[in-house]
Amino acid sequence: MLKLYSYWRSSASYRVRIALNLKGLAYEIVPVHLVREGGQQFSDAYRALNPQSRVPLLVDGDFALNQSLAILEYLEALHPQPALLAGDVRTQARIRAFCQTINADIQPLQNTGVLKYLGETLQVDEQARAAWLRHWITRGLAALEDGLRAMPDAPFVFGETAGWAECLLVPQIYAATRFGCDAARYPRLSRVAAHCASLPAFQRAHPDAQPDAGG
Amino acid sequence: MLKLYSYWRSSASYRVRIALNLKGLAYEIVPVHLVREGGQQFSDAYRALNPQSRVPLLVDGDFALNQSLAILEYLEALHPQPALLAGDVRTQARIRAFCQTINADIQPLQNTGVLKYLGETLQVDEQARAAWLRHWITRGLAALEDGLRAMPDAPFVFGETAGWAECLLVPQIYAATRFGCDAARYPRLSRVAAHCASLPAFQRAHPDAQPDAGG
Repeated sequence: MLKLYSYWRSSASYRVRIALNLKGLAYEIVPVHLVREGGQQFSDAYRALNPQSRVPLLVDGDFALNQSLAILEYLEALHPQPALLAGDVRTQARIRAFCQTINADIQPLQNTGVLKYLGETLQVDEQARAAWLRHWITRGLAALEDGLRAMPDAPFVFGETAGWAECLLVPQIYAATRFGCDAARYPRLSRVAAHCASLPAFQRAHPDAQPDAGG
Repeated sequence: MLKLYSYWRSSASYRVRIALNLKGLAYEIVPVHLVREGGQQFSDAYRALNPQSRVPLLVDGDFALNQSLAILEYLEALHPQPALLAGDVRTQARIRAFCQTINADIQPLQNTGVLKYLGETLQVDEQARAAWLRHWITRGLAALEDGLRAMPDAPFVFGETAGWAECLLVPQIYAATRFGCDAARYPRLSRVAAHCASLPAFQRAHPDAQPDAGG
């Protein structure tokens, strides 16, 4: 069975959990606590599996793979149905660009290690850290919202079915809400996320539904 | 002809220039200055093309695409030869994970907007900003180097030909050198980058070879 090294509140872990659920694949969660014991991801045992010391990590037999978007591509190649990256070459390109915006422009600035460095090394206080989070998240989501203006409205970001865009979006909206961002700047994205919240694949992937929730 | 909106010293633009050169595709560079005039990427004209206000942006006829890794995937789908993502599913997954580590874990913390926020909004002085850069770049590259330990040595990261890994690596090593990182922590990656520097596709993509160089 697939094993997913995951932390309940990690956005990147949450993305992969949604994808596995949408594909109907069985997997076992192995919790890695990113704060406790100075961060279990820095333990020798975990570092041997993943030198990047980050979650998620997917283990498929003797093959270990890190990086959430590389994992999504790998799952798509091995288990093409249901397709989470649908459409022609241009549509797929747009979906990938949407995902990369969250993956490379927003999420990296909200992650645990960065917030720790801001607080402990740069002595940035809690209020300024909260403003930093809201700045990058709101800027990124607002620009994604603007980029969708020309597209017809639909239940999901790119049409009638959930896919990679929602795997990335839902954890990002979860983080935005947690950090007090103004959802009025991205109403359409918020509507998609709210719709996803009614679907079992998303419900089972939610941080609060994880074995390590609240830890 | 393809148009690439690019800034000479932008890592993400540099990646796409290398890929276009390796594929032997003709393209026109449209410079976007990320600092001058408060950042030309924030102009109304550019924002209409790319609401994210970032470079690079590839324009192929009536189709505009942002995000460097989405652009690499798009070029690979339309112009499969020479392949820049070679190998079986597992090798491709490893290459994608390598690229995402640079794209999502390293580069976002060194980009112009983040450094500006650190300096202007958080009043982080130049020395502390330099330490921030070295921290994230060295941590990321050292972990990538560690992840390659089990692999046979080769002229390029994943074997005998240059591909996506080098498109991402070479601009990251360029930034690491510029920001004074300790190359002794990633000797193998430095060797690959030095080898790439001898190849015309990489030479023509170099920041100093751009029409907007030094601006």
